[in-house]
Amino acid sequence: MKEFAFIKSLKNLSSADGLHGIGDDAVLTDGLLIAKDIVAEGVHFTKYAPLQNIIFRLFTANVSDIAAMGGQAEKALLGVALPSTLNKEKLTEAVRYACSYYDIKLIGGDTTSSISHFFASLTIIGSPSENILTRNGAKEGDEVYLSRPVGGAAAMLARELAGERVYEHYLYKAETELGEYLGGFGVNSCIDISDGLGRDASHIAEASGVRIELDSRLIPEYGISDAVSSGEEFALLFTVPKSRAKEMEELIHRDLKRPVYRIGKVKKGAGVFMDGEDISEKGWEHG
Amino acid sequence: MKEFAFIKSLKNLSSADGLHGIGDDAVLTDGLLIAKDIVAEGVHFTKYAPLQNIIFRLFTANVSDIAAMGGQAEKALLGVALPSTLNKEKLTEAVRYACSYYDIKLIGGDTTSSISHFFASLTIIGSPSENILTRNGAKEGDEVYLSRPVGGAAAMLARELAGERVYEHYLYKAETELGEYLGGFGVNSCIDISDGLGRDASHIAEASGVRIELDSRLIPEYGISDAVSSGEEFALLFTVPKSRAKEMEELIHRDLKRPVYRIGKVKKGAGVFMDGEDISEKGWEHG
Repeated sequence: MKEFAFIKSLKNLSSADGLHGIGDDAVLTDGLLIAKDIVAEGVHFTKYAPLQNIIFRLFTANVSDIAAMGGQAEKALLGVALPSTLNKEKLTEAVRYACSYYDIKLIGGDTTSSISHFFASLTIIGSPSENILTRNGAKEGDEVYLSRPVGGAAAMLARELAGERVYEHYLYKAETELGEYLGGFGVNSCIDISDGLGRDASHIAEASGVRIELDSRLIPEYGISDAVSSGEEFALLFTVPKSRAKEMEELIHRDLKRPVYRIGKVKKGAGVFMDGEDISEKGWEHG
Repeated sequence: MKEFAFIKSLKNLSSADGLHGIGDDAVLTDGLLIAKDIVAEGVHFTKYAPLQNIIFRLFTANVSDIAAMGGQAEKALLGVALPSTLNKEKLTEAVRYACSYYDIKLIGGDTTSSISHFFASLTIIGSPSENILTRNGAKEGDEVYLSRPVGGAAAMLARELAGERVYEHYLYKAETELGEYLGGFGVNSCIDISDGLGRDASHIAEASGVRIELDSRLIPEYGISDAVSSGEEFALLFTVPKSRAKEMEELIHRDLKRPVYRIGKVKKGAGVFMDGEDISEKGWEHG
């Protein structure tokens, strides 16, 4: 639920309860978080990619949208348009695996045939934590955090696009545990990395009306350029008031036995900069 | 949300709150009715069909699923995969029209490109009425009702498939007002006609463990054979205890200023018969 230039054009149809509508990772309505992602063969995956991996990434993208809002994904509806050559048993197995991995109950869906390519749509329903995390809550003085190293997806995608049958980047996991934890803790803003660190940080900067300054020396990475532009990472990027940052790091370390990475600061102004260079447009164009 | 042989195969993932899961028109979860339909170019519509009509029918199919459960459609998430040739302004206008017609708020969605055909997926969220109408509540002795004449969609579809540019059947309306009214009144079972009267009646018969006997002389129609097999009509088929049938007819006449049509009876047994002939398999194969 990221690329909605078209959907956004339907402006006066798009305010959800006047609260969190189009523009965040998921929408909050009737006390539920709902996200929807679609994927198409030839755009999001090649016909050689294993069904298991394609379906897993579709689930991950949706589950990650809920995690980035601080919630927990619980239920799903799946729609598929199936070319006659598609192996339905493998598809069933792939859906079963993804549901099982993320502990999601499949509650409905629709199946049809396709005279050309494979197309799938997933609607995810999640329950919010105490706090709804959005993109527009970053405040001047916040510390900026990244949940884990990024860049690997871009590196593997490059190999896939060069013809190698590399599909491990489809299996990156959504940050379900951390997302829910941050929702309980209540950070100021949060987004998942699906368009690239540069561009996703700029979504926060724009929505919050702030400037984000990142320090390349702090970024856990597989290579700086990859780290900035690699999409579909599903790491979380979030900002926390300086006064609560140390407490948050310690709690996450204690309760989740993992680190998170402080990578920069929120300042007055606009845009996203790394070591002074504007990186707000650096990202991955998908679909 | 009709053809879910594949989805159904995911049995142990499919029980929604133990209440109404896969098998009904929509699913009831967290106090909401949710339905999802997908359509694909070349399967549900031809590339000559006007976008306005394609999108309207996609909305109608989903809204009708909510109406058939006795609820009211309120919000939607739309996913589209767009070929480069598709006119985005016309699509926006089509979505705006459908949302406006059915008084639905678009709260989210996802847009991507398609390297081949046009695909669309709609998720509809509705609020239930006092009673949730299902397919499995028909009882021996119930009267069987149809909300309006059927058969026109099949006749026009035949002309479209013969090459005529006839797309008016895409504009059939969902029975929103009646569905909600029946939900308030509390009929025993309800379904919308999307697969054809014969087959949809058999969905009720199977789910309820009863036999349905229809009388051809009672059926309001454009031609009996069309009436039995015409799908995508979005009329409602419902059953009411004999003791409440007259009261219901009178209330609908008084409050909605319209008729509904008594077309048969619910008996002990199995299957769907018209004048003694088994019509349970007569329907329209789509997708």
